[in-house]
Amino acid sequence: MRIAVVGAGALGLYYGAMLQRGGAEVAFLLRRDFEAISAHGLQVRSVDGDFHLPHVDGYRHAADIGPVDLVLIGLKTFANDRIRELIPPLLGEQTLLLTLQNGLGNEDLLAGLFGSQRVLGGVAFLCANRGEPGVVHHLGAGRIELGAWGDVPSGRIAAVAAAFVAAGIECRVVADVRRARWQKLVWNIPFNGLCALLDQSVDSLLRFPATRRLIHEIMREVIGAANVQGLSEPIADAFAEQMLTFTDAMGPYLPSMQIDRREGRPLELDAIFAAAVSAGAERGAALPRTSTIHALLSFAVDDGASADAVLLPKKEA
Amino acid sequence: MRIAVVGAGALGLYYGAMLQRGGAEVAFLLRRDFEAISAHGLQVRSVDGDFHLPHVDGYRHAADIGPVDLVLIGLKTFANDRIRELIPPLLGEQTLLLTLQNGLGNEDLLAGLFGSQRVLGGVAFLCANRGEPGVVHHLGAGRIELGAWGDVPSGRIAAVAAAFVAAGIECRVVADVRRARWQKLVWNIPFNGLCALLDQSVDSLLRFPATRRLIHEIMREVIGAANVQGLSEPIADAFAEQMLTFTDAMGPYLPSMQIDRREGRPLELDAIFAAAVSAGAERGAALPRTSTIHALLSFAVDDGASADAVLLPKKEA
Repeated sequence: MRIAVVGAGALGLYYGAMLQRGGAEVAFLLRRDFEAISAHGLQVRSVDGDFHLPHVDGYRHAADIGPVDLVLIGLKTFANDRIRELIPPLLGEQTLLLTLQNGLGNEDLLAGLFGSQRVLGGVAFLCANRGEPGVVHHLGAGRIELGAWGDVPSGRIAAVAAAFVAAGIECRVVADVRRARWQKLVWNIPFNGLCALLDQSVDSLLRFPATRRLIHEIMREVIGAANVQGLSEPIADAFAEQMLTFTDAMGPYLPSMQIDRREGRPLELDAIFAAAVSAGAERGAALPRTSTIHALLSFAVDDGASADAVLLPKKEA
Repeated sequence: MRIAVVGAGALGLYYGAMLQRGGAEVAFLLRRDFEAISAHGLQVRSVDGDFHLPHVDGYRHAADIGPVDLVLIGLKTFANDRIRELIPPLLGEQTLLLTLQNGLGNEDLLAGLFGSQRVLGGVAFLCANRGEPGVVHHLGAGRIELGAWGDVPSGRIAAVAAAFVAAGIECRVVADVRRARWQKLVWNIPFNGLCALLDQSVDSLLRFPATRRLIHEIMREVIGAANVQGLSEPIADAFAEQMLTFTDAMGPYLPSMQIDRREGRPLELDAIFAAAVSAGAERGAALPRTSTIHALLSFAVDDGASADAVLLPKKEA
């Protein structure tokens, strides 16, 4: 299976490297890491064991890759306006598009541009960060849930899932991708949001009783909004406790949104926060905590806010 | 009328100075400002015109003041455990206690300790900050609404209000102090909370659309909780817009909670946030935005949170 990775951040680099090691032919569309990877290959520093791919097919332009069997899309959602130009050179008659991006709306965007019969959606429960160019850090987890957005033959979905499994990645085909997306939001909204806002790793917020309680309340709020979306089956409240336990095991993990904020990059506020709040509102479910965090983060990263707008250090003991 | 000011922060110093200038005999219980005021008197820098009181009766101990007609209490609520010791030396047969403190619960505390027949409650819509010792800055507003908590003869309440009016302070006697308290919370919860959390003056938050909208939503949330408390009459939603307009006129005002946070002092989180959330919950009104801000502020000022817990500077342009 020939696979193109578009959006080679931590997620794209990690899964692409794993798929290549598992036997797939992988082409990476690169920007920041192009020179390092062309010269030295790709280093994966993983909790499951480090490995190095000395030869990696890196490209600067999608046209140089040409048609593939599968496009794995890991772009940050604020770069989604580039999809219109990046994807067409990769499309053959049978090419499938798999978005593992965060938030809501990515599959609809792809389906609108390229036809729903090509579109798979998926969510990745992955702890990974980029290191220096040519290096990706896999800190834990990695499970993928994917499924068809439109009318994709089940044999073709199974083949994609099989490529991940052959690469040693836990991958499950799900009937209801939207449900999986909302489950991911149950994690993303509190942890990406609060860690980015307060500049904290997940463990600090889980250790402090008031923020742990807030995280739990946000999770229940998101579950409430999910369960009015007509999902195939409701998300149980117990899923919030499972996510707390799952996250307790991560230790001092820094969610990607926090790293993006630290490094001055844009945040995925629209796809994660605004999309969830508006999907809730359309069906009568309010997300007041989510919209509070959204407003605070929007303010905190806005260039136009006043120049003296520096968040305070914590009180000195 | 002999008046003792207990809790001589910006509010206590300002109203005490105004009352003295208006003809009342005022004794100030002082800590930080004792030496400066004993040596040089009290400076009021006011938008209504500066003035200086060269002779001010400052005391270190309540016992040296003795019984008065009225005790004006401006203590920060986190210092309320000192009330039990500070008030008794000031009490004569007829002494009234007027709390102009923030939040909920102050009148009940006084009534429980000293009898409800002595207790007046009030709210001050005052923009004032302390300057260097011996100086208080009056930046705007100053209106007081006060009323009886227990069974206080109306003539005595009117005499207290008349002392304020004689001092040039807009002062109105209200039938329902609890309603006035909730009205003050409609301002305090969003502005003290968000300004302290984000280290902003009120105008920055009002200028940015997402935070202005959040402030408005928080106000409506607090009004909703107020209106299940059995107040004498409901607080109209339009009160939120009035408070926005009132605050727009303040310019770059820094609420006291933000200054307290900047200077590493405790914040009045219990009296303002926790008390409102629990009063709402007791009567079935949720305050999810208020409790979100409360949790975030609690985390931000907690000594026990991790040492690297520094809120981030805004993204560089």
